[in-house]
Amino acid sequence: MKAPVHMALAGLATPALLLDSAVLERNCEAMAQRAAHHGVALRPHLKTSKSAEVARLATRGQAGGIAVSTVAEADYFAAHGFLDLTYAVGISASKIEALDRIQRTYGARITLLADRVEAVLSAAEEARALDASFRMLIEIDTGGGRGGLAPGDAELLSVARAVQQSEAFALAGVLTHAGHSYHVEGRDAIRAIAETERAGAVHAAGRLRAAGLRIDVVSVGATPTAVCAERLDGVTEMRPGVYTFFDLDQAARGICDIEDVALSVLATVIGHNPRSRRVLIDAGALALSKDESAAEFRDGLGFGLVCQVDGAAPMAGLRVAELHQEHGLIACDSDTDGAVEAMFAALPVGSRVRILPHHACMTAAPYDRYHVVRGAGSDVHAIWGKTRGWNVHTKDA
Amino acid sequence: MKAPVHMALAGLATPALLLDSAVLERNCEAMAQRAAHHGVALRPHLKTSKSAEVARLATRGQAGGIAVSTVAEADYFAAHGFLDLTYAVGISASKIEALDRIQRTYGARITLLADRVEAVLSAAEEARALDASFRMLIEIDTGGGRGGLAPGDAELLSVARAVQQSEAFALAGVLTHAGHSYHVEGRDAIRAIAETERAGAVHAAGRLRAAGLRIDVVSVGATPTAVCAERLDGVTEMRPGVYTFFDLDQAARGICDIEDVALSVLATVIGHNPRSRRVLIDAGALALSKDESAAEFRDGLGFGLVCQVDGAAPMAGLRVAELHQEHGLIACDSDTDGAVEAMFAALPVGSRVRILPHHACMTAAPYDRYHVVRGAGSDVHAIWGKTRGWNVHTKDA
Repeated sequence: MKAPVHMALAGLATPALLLDSAVLERNCEAMAQRAAHHGVALRPHLKTSKSAEVARLATRGQAGGIAVSTVAEADYFAAHGFLDLTYAVGISASKIEALDRIQRTYGARITLLADRVEAVLSAAEEARALDASFRMLIEIDTGGGRGGLAPGDAELLSVARAVQQSEAFALAGVLTHAGHSYHVEGRDAIRAIAETERAGAVHAAGRLRAAGLRIDVVSVGATPTAVCAERLDGVTEMRPGVYTFFDLDQAARGICDIEDVALSVLATVIGHNPRSRRVLIDAGALALSKDESAAEFRDGLGFGLVCQVDGAAPMAGLRVAELHQEHGLIACDSDTDGAVEAMFAALPVGSRVRILPHHACMTAAPYDRYHVVRGAGSDVHAIWGKTRGWNVHTKDA
Repeated sequence: MKAPVHMALAGLATPALLLDSAVLERNCEAMAQRAAHHGVALRPHLKTSKSAEVARLATRGQAGGIAVSTVAEADYFAAHGFLDLTYAVGISASKIEALDRIQRTYGARITLLADRVEAVLSAAEEARALDASFRMLIEIDTGGGRGGLAPGDAELLSVARAVQQSEAFALAGVLTHAGHSYHVEGRDAIRAIAETERAGAVHAAGRLRAAGLRIDVVSVGATPTAVCAERLDGVTEMRPGVYTFFDLDQAARGICDIEDVALSVLATVIGHNPRSRRVLIDAGALALSKDESAAEFRDGLGFGLVCQVDGAAPMAGLRVAELHQEHGLIACDSDTDGAVEAMFAALPVGSRVRILPHHACMTAAPYDRYHVVRGAGSDVHAIWGKTRGWNVHTKDA
């Protein structure tokens, strides 16, 4: 933990990534309570924040490890003492050497994911050449259509046996991610997907156990299903990620409220254009991301909502209407001269705003640090580091 | 220049950003010839590549400086010996200290941009407190609706006098960017915008000269207008950027051909999903960006086109159809079982592909390095560094 800092938002170089630690702590506590209620372990997916300080809060009071989605994240979190890691993207042989190096360097234990016999065999061959070993989960597709075998797929047993017969891998269980829960509206619809996710993972685990295999891990995960699930019996862990920060996408579907969004981008007003009726800010497509995922459920959000610098509720009728690489253009819903003049008066050149993002994972990813505030109107009380990128590079590669 | 390297594409950690230096050199040479043909200086906008090696090629044989869009880029390029920099985003007082530090540290000369009296006054006050001085251009809006005054705006003279009367700033000229040239199709339409861009900048410069002000710089810029302009008389420099790499967005409008695209993302096939009829790769929304700008002009591109690892022409009928944070999902246009099976056979698990991006600036931004190839089928012959992010941070800020 670094020494505390004290910086006014007016003094920060913009664009800057602000994180409200009070909201973050509340979000972490609520999810830990949900996991406890269901009697499952919480293995937070740290692809959202990529930050050790966030990981400490998200894993507070629990023994469970974390999930990651890149080799860079695995290396960073292992270096920060998080040694029980699930690399929750289908393994390829080309990632084995880097992941093995992380296990050896930090004494970490990395759990991998596979859904095809050929992927198991090629990764096992690479691991055997390095005398490396990993725990392995079999990925189950419970409707997301991304990675995984269907719960009833005949190939499930072939993959499990390939894992079991390899020298390199120890079969630990099954894992699924109900990504399609991001594309339905309303808690009832998400609840139904949560049950499909649970039932599919449990069914796959049951088939493997019926074949005499030991299955310790039945892992489900996605913030919408983790929030909405009514029951998780048969499940051993859940892996939600974006709940730590929440965002407009989650709020648009009622998974959270706007005041649960912990992340925002601090930007400076750099101009007014009375002809195009736009306020220009120095946070553009790279600083905010072009993600518009909440537009699937709610109109009028543009590329993000605009808040005063103190972090109070979004300013009515304003949105980020256009993004260029390093310019954001704020517009107001009403096109009357009076509304445009009021917008210019509310956002003078040189003033600062916070933008609430559609998708926290996409917005946070390219930054190197969080400037941490606590509650509306607060200054920055800490700077938290994070990782980014994909791989661990030696000096010349 | 680093020592040459020799790495097979099969050995790279993925996702990786590939840059074909032969295509890059051809693109740079063609733009230098266009500038020479028009008798204007070429000031390449380095926001696309953020790389000193690319800047060396783009400025070869010419005295002109470069344009940048972040403080981080200004610092990086000045550190690499590029000392004539235009910071081509409207200035705010809060950026002055960092830009002045760059001028003093490296002996750089930074030219700023403003379009409002209040921005000039607040930036001048900050500069005066630091005993800093900058060259200043007035931004003209020739139809893009982003920054700038209309060429005939009465305020133009007020801004110019505010610049002239400040101790900190020396009025150098006018600058415009025809961003709306990205949203029309066909060379005739772009040619018309190029003439509006030229005529607007020249008209604004003429008004300032008529008021007795010395105007040395009349700067226009955007890759589409730079490629299509018939005449640039009265203009002194152009600032295109994406032409160095080109991309699907430029190709979709006929500004370049597919074989002029120098940038691609190397990815590994990590799975097949026969139910969703998708090939999974380890390059997702962060590695490719969610930019779909070419979709305005051409269907069927998805989030990018798929090429074999040797870099030959795109594979017919395939596209990146979906993006998750670290997963890309490739689909084929035909939904027949035969087509899907042919796709799986062409892209076995563990094999590698290159993805051509919609918008090179967005795709390249978050990476730390280019793996440089030369022509189809070549290995990596160099690794080029680049900058990223926005600001120059002291240790604790």
